[in-house]
Amino acid sequence: MAAKKKETRVIITGFGGQGIVLTGNILGQAATLHDGLHATMTQNYGPEARGGSCSSQVIISGAEIPYPYVEQADLLVCMSQEGYTKNLSALAPGGVLVWDTNLVKTGGHDPSWRTFDLPATAIAEEMGNKMMANIVMLGFLSAVFPAASPEAMREAMLAAVPPRTKDKNALAFERGRERGQGLLESGRAGQGRRRS
Amino acid sequence: MAAKKKETRVIITGFGGQGIVLTGNILGQAATLHDGLHATMTQNYGPEARGGSCSSQVIISGAEIPYPYVEQADLLVCMSQEGYTKNLSALAPGGVLVWDTNLVKTGGHDPSWRTFDLPATAIAEEMGNKMMANIVMLGFLSAVFPAASPEAMREAMLAAVPPRTKDKNALAFERGRERGQGLLESGRAGQGRRRS
Repeated sequence: MAAKKKETRVIITGFGGQGIVLTGNILGQAATLHDGLHATMTQNYGPEARGGSCSSQVIISGAEIPYPYVEQADLLVCMSQEGYTKNLSALAPGGVLVWDTNLVKTGGHDPSWRTFDLPATAIAEEMGNKMMANIVMLGFLSAVFPAASPEAMREAMLAAVPPRTKDKNALAFERGRERGQGLLESGRAGQGRRRS
Repeated sequence: MAAKKKETRVIITGFGGQGIVLTGNILGQAATLHDGLHATMTQNYGPEARGGSCSSQVIISGAEIPYPYVEQADLLVCMSQEGYTKNLSALAPGGVLVWDTNLVKTGGHDPSWRTFDLPATAIAEEMGNKMMANIVMLGFLSAVFPAASPEAMREAMLAAVPPRTKDKNALAFERGRERGQGLLESGRAGQGRRRS
């Protein structure tokens, strides 16, 4: 099971139109093209997706990945309430939970988790386009959970967004990244609280 | 194995920048949001992706999909020479092979396959943007291998592309679709030729 241990397993969840698949794709590209790792990205679509819920699963590994489904995640990113509720049980002990403060109300959490929240949507709106919330989140992740190297995540993001939007997205990434660095430096990362 | 038989397994292969992941995502969305089916889309990134090769695997089913990897495909779409060479052995007996005439030189094929070729890149270039080759291909597939209903594929495509580009992409889809319908009507779909 040595290979298994080297895997980093990520679930990104939100709703249609937020760029959840794009975010997963950027993470996979960053790990592969820039960091020389293996990665898979899987999206499940089901009739429940009618409600707009969607999720992207990314596995990053130093070796080939035999099974692309994430059963236990090291990182769970929640950009919708439904995504949070549905996927919380998939976060492994000791995992990292990140959510968009503007979109998710959280309950009690496993005390072994590290928790981070970020008003990604509000930051993106302030910058003029809430569709960039996923990029703000990506910048934040590059600080608090760099599944790929931060520079690789930034490069892969720039390659994935429409050319005209590069400057704005670079700024959105930076805003999120600064927020994450600030949280880490201030020691304000949360610990899970027991479910009440 | 009844559920297995109901699965439609697709591999779309090409190189970075062609929108291969987007094409897989559109197919998954079409099947789910519009046709009420289940779907998964998996992308594998590996160090070999440095060369630019990439592929997207889509499974569409009336039931939940237990294993998202495609081992034997019902449809293989090739938008690069390397994608063709690497994935040909994954096409099931009786499967459908589609390639972009501008990008792929084919060899001998299993005689049980149905084969279709389309100058997707040339058509897209003629329309002013070769980046739309994947949408031309999607329109073509809506005629020759409608893994989701053609109308669903069209709707999912329109929802996935940048709003400003909808008209051009609608036209690209239509060009590909007409080409596919023309081939079907003229009976010019190929049969596999024995490998020489």
